[in-house]
Amino acid sequence: MNLIENLNWRYAAKAYNPTKKVSEESINKIVEAARLAPTSSGLQPFKVIVIKNQEIKEQLVKGALNPECMRDCSHVIVFAAWDRYTADRIDKVYDFTTDERDLPRGRFASYTDKLKEIYLNESADKNHAHAARQTYIALGLALAQAAELKIDSTPVEGFNNELIDKVLGLDQQGLKSVSLMYVGYSDEEKDWLKNMKKVRVPKEEFVIEY
Amino acid sequence: MNLIENLNWRYAAKAYNPTKKVSEESINKIVEAARLAPTSSGLQPFKVIVIKNQEIKEQLVKGALNPECMRDCSHVIVFAAWDRYTADRIDKVYDFTTDERDLPRGRFASYTDKLKEIYLNESADKNHAHAARQTYIALGLALAQAAELKIDSTPVEGFNNELIDKVLGLDQQGLKSVSLMYVGYSDEEKDWLKNMKKVRVPKEEFVIEY
Repeated sequence: MNLIENLNWRYAAKAYNPTKKVSEESINKIVEAARLAPTSSGLQPFKVIVIKNQEIKEQLVKGALNPECMRDCSHVIVFAAWDRYTADRIDKVYDFTTDERDLPRGRFASYTDKLKEIYLNESADKNHAHAARQTYIALGLALAQAAELKIDSTPVEGFNNELIDKVLGLDQQGLKSVSLMYVGYSDEEKDWLKNMKKVRVPKEEFVIEY
Repeated sequence: MNLIENLNWRYAAKAYNPTKKVSEESINKIVEAARLAPTSSGLQPFKVIVIKNQEIKEQLVKGALNPECMRDCSHVIVFAAWDRYTADRIDKVYDFTTDERDLPRGRFASYTDKLKEIYLNESADKNHAHAARQTYIALGLALAQAAELKIDSTPVEGFNNELIDKVLGLDQQGLKSVSLMYVGYSDEEKDWLKNMKKVRVPKEEFVIEY
């Protein structure tokens, strides 16, 4: 199936079958799609935290708007963005990039100097807001990858970020949770959305052409 | 090819061949991937503006960080998010959704009341920041769709938003530009990035597992 067929197949699952688990191989593919996501200036200013451990999930459940979904899904993936940009973080990415490309370190110095001039003069909140946007590219591609594998998923924004950051110790890692993705297999009897028509704004309202 | 192969194939094109144009059929598929993107509460709080008209592109070029790319690419797609959430906008989406599903209007009233309580008590800036995040999901899927079609593309953040909003009259439509996507065919001689190794943070640094 192609991407458009996969996007038509997927929907935000509303109930999961707790007895059906997703294979490690499939989780790896979903994470790989997120890792390959393009990001602003290639900085990849985020990590993903993949949780299959039920005890950890139970600690997060009270911060969820849809606790049963979180409890019953196979894996929870947390997208957590950098709390701010720093010179070290920018240099680390570009040093790795030049090393991988057999280029001298500093090859992109005029560009990274510009990035530092922009980001290091902004507030941490503004930095994080920019990094957080990048995670949505990865979230979209991870959802598309799950659909390609015929695995159900749910993108999630409404949750208690502070609880999740605390349970996962994200602040000590310079990260803040942005969104979640539940991954698993839908409980077909309890999932009220599964058989409803997919609705999107009609193309003629969505697109303006010049 | 599957999604991961397509994501490995793509890169942010740095120079376009101005004589090679993308077919309307392919542009429609790229737009369709964006239209099918999941968004928070299904509100789809954005539109895409597809520009093939060279005169309009020329008016935007002076606001671009990479003017030659914008001038030479086949189409520019602008992702423009709602300037704010309103009760009318939320109701319009949910009325359309219930109509499409043969459900009574108001079937999701308790949910939309909650959304209004949250969003209408926030500033327009905070509303827009939330809507803007959703556009990145669509941007990622549009880039993946272009790659599936073996069409080059460039995701773009750095540009003069005010100029683009003014040229396209976005403010009168309650929209603000968030990102751009150039679409076309790379100029293989001028594109310095085309043959460089794709670099991403290694999986062991990208993922934390529990």
